[in-house]
Amino acid sequence: MSRPSIDALRAEAAKLDAHDPLAGFRDRFVIDDPELIYLDGNSLGRAPIGASERIERLVRDEWGSRLVRGWGEGWLDLPRRLGAKIANLIGAKPQEVVVCDSTSVNLYKLCGAALEAVPEGVIVSEEGNFPSDLYVLQGLAHAHSRELRLAQSPAELDFSGAALVSLSHTSFKSGRIHDMAAINRAARSAGALVVWDLSHSVGAVPVDLEGSGADMAVGCTYKHLHGGPGSPAFLYVRENLCERLSSPIKGWFGQRDAFHFDLRYSPRNGIEKFMAGTPPIVSMAAVEPGVDLVLEAGIATIREKSMAQTELLVQLWEDRLRSHGFSLNSPSNSGERGSHVAFGHPHAYRIDQALIAQKKVIPDFRAPDIIRLGVSPLYTTYIELVEAVDRIVEVMESRAYELFPGEFGSVT
Amino acid sequence: MSRPSIDALRAEAAKLDAHDPLAGFRDRFVIDDPELIYLDGNSLGRAPIGASERIERLVRDEWGSRLVRGWGEGWLDLPRRLGAKIANLIGAKPQEVVVCDSTSVNLYKLCGAALEAVPEGVIVSEEGNFPSDLYVLQGLAHAHSRELRLAQSPAELDFSGAALVSLSHTSFKSGRIHDMAAINRAARSAGALVVWDLSHSVGAVPVDLEGSGADMAVGCTYKHLHGGPGSPAFLYVRENLCERLSSPIKGWFGQRDAFHFDLRYSPRNGIEKFMAGTPPIVSMAAVEPGVDLVLEAGIATIREKSMAQTELLVQLWEDRLRSHGFSLNSPSNSGERGSHVAFGHPHAYRIDQALIAQKKVIPDFRAPDIIRLGVSPLYTTYIELVEAVDRIVEVMESRAYELFPGEFGSVT
Repeated sequence: MSRPSIDALRAEAAKLDAHDPLAGFRDRFVIDDPELIYLDGNSLGRAPIGASERIERLVRDEWGSRLVRGWGEGWLDLPRRLGAKIANLIGAKPQEVVVCDSTSVNLYKLCGAALEAVPEGVIVSEEGNFPSDLYVLQGLAHAHSRELRLAQSPAELDFSGAALVSLSHTSFKSGRIHDMAAINRAARSAGALVVWDLSHSVGAVPVDLEGSGADMAVGCTYKHLHGGPGSPAFLYVRENLCERLSSPIKGWFGQRDAFHFDLRYSPRNGIEKFMAGTPPIVSMAAVEPGVDLVLEAGIATIREKSMAQTELLVQLWEDRLRSHGFSLNSPSNSGERGSHVAFGHPHAYRIDQALIAQKKVIPDFRAPDIIRLGVSPLYTTYIELVEAVDRIVEVMESRAYELFPGEFGSVT
Repeated sequence: MSRPSIDALRAEAAKLDAHDPLAGFRDRFVIDDPELIYLDGNSLGRAPIGASERIERLVRDEWGSRLVRGWGEGWLDLPRRLGAKIANLIGAKPQEVVVCDSTSVNLYKLCGAALEAVPEGVIVSEEGNFPSDLYVLQGLAHAHSRELRLAQSPAELDFSGAALVSLSHTSFKSGRIHDMAAINRAARSAGALVVWDLSHSVGAVPVDLEGSGADMAVGCTYKHLHGGPGSPAFLYVRENLCERLSSPIKGWFGQRDAFHFDLRYSPRNGIEKFMAGTPPIVSMAAVEPGVDLVLEAGIATIREKSMAQTELLVQLWEDRLRSHGFSLNSPSNSGERGSHVAFGHPHAYRIDQALIAQKKVIPDFRAPDIIRLGVSPLYTTYIELVEAVDRIVEVMESRAYELFPGEFGSVT
């Protein structure tokens, strides 16, 4: 079987870009170097131009001029208002989602609440879960004297005797998508509550929390929602479950009539009871423009392009990377894969360094030997994927990566 | 005794402003309406012009252009770098302070760590503590099966059998400053650890954590540090205590070699172990310019002006407000008082509303009957205090407050 030439691949990619219904969205982001191929939107999405404008207005007109009055003029409502928008992307009701704290702190609050509600039983997760999620669970297991049972793979998940199941919907490493409905059913049969981490799904992979019978979820806003570095996370609790649960962190944003300054904690009724302290408004305000872009584009259209783009990456791997020793470490079926593709290589860290330093390609390295190529359908073009793989081939053929040291280390 | 005329007061204030060593700092803040007298810096400090510039640069040049590389180019270090600056204001070593999360979440982490380290004994606080701090303590008391003992006043604090003492250094309501060294000594004798909330002190009242033998502290950055709405908080743990303690929230920013993605949590050695999830960089970057202004001005000079200004407010109360039914609800000695003065009045809420709506004065209302007038020495002038009190007198004499409804409600 003859392989397509690079020129043929470029021509095909150009055609796909010309017919891309999302092509216009690229201009809505800060892109000052069109040569730079940014394939790390699954760690930190690009900056929407609207975010820059929003923050400038917030500092000058709201904080600067309205001062403390800003709380009554939109800031107090922001966590709920943003949550209601994100709800549209994850199959939740507007009143079931709120934006606050970090993903880790939100996971701690919801898993802690679950363990208080289900007083006996083990905590179930898997080794492929994001390590930080596992750290939170280890801490809770210790504090609540529970066993933490980690499956070595999704197929080996065992829900017997479970009180709490916590998993990432889309794996940070392989990009594999869990069958949310099947896991919710199995966990419920065992009497367990499930807390999903949607960080690698929200904004890229459609999620149906209500339709799949999910209990709780958390997720970050700085990847496919383009919210900015460390932007606040969100949390979801199913409406009819909310009443049974209470947050381990009793903060005044979770307090009924907080400004009455009662000495005794009395939680609000709904999802707000899971808020804790005063939210970081500047970072939070920067989240909204990215969420608005995702809503405007439509998650179905985003998913369609994301699948086509990761399929192109897998085809390019087959045609051009496999022979250089790269393995495919993601599901081969795009329906089971999120918005990134993981390639394994013994020199992955050095190749990653060479691509960033010499080739204007920013992939993502994940220890010990994975290069992730993440597509962000709102700004990633098809031609960029062809070019990026071409530059990887150049690095392999020139052995440019040998100039870089062999240890690993990276940032999210 | 004859009272000074308003003209004499104005002349005296103008003279104080003319000789104010901090007068030049006012121009470093966004002030678009010089008529507006803002006396609520103890809820939300004004916006430094530098913060606006810093955020713009961060979004455009760092997030926008450097993208995920920003983490390696300053973002990862920001929590520690900012913590080291704040350490200068509170008598701590640079390596003992880190900026992260909200005050409530930080209080939860440190008090939770203290209760794990001291496995028996009651939690001691007082009714005058900030209510949200009490909510956090109530939650921890429940989770750890401890008694929470609240003193009705500072004089009634009883440390017998205490495991944990948690107090606000400067009271949010009365402005009273606790004797930190005496309380640290008494608590230590009882075998308890102490966690101080410095929110109403940092940047306005000198704090000597090391000199007073303090164990732990938290505080916010959005009042006298001018960090912006809901800007991230800080936490302090005495260096030689750090090793004994562990955070209940095991997050990946507290993990040794986080980017090795080990499955098992293994905390960092120092103060970083108390970090949890990814910090909100945009909000955090906005904190630095305000901290820099405070450092440039010097905390001793700030405190000197703050005391002179609250003394002027007490004198104005004596001369002009007392006869209108206002009580002084703060210590009368400025050495025992932070950077605000609390006045009680049965119509406080309505008076507050009238001042904001009709008189371009923004004080702060605290339920049920307190008006706080907070001075921020970097931008509050003496003449503003004379004018503000004059406008309060106008509201009282015209009975303008009667147009406003009688219920209370406010924002921090």
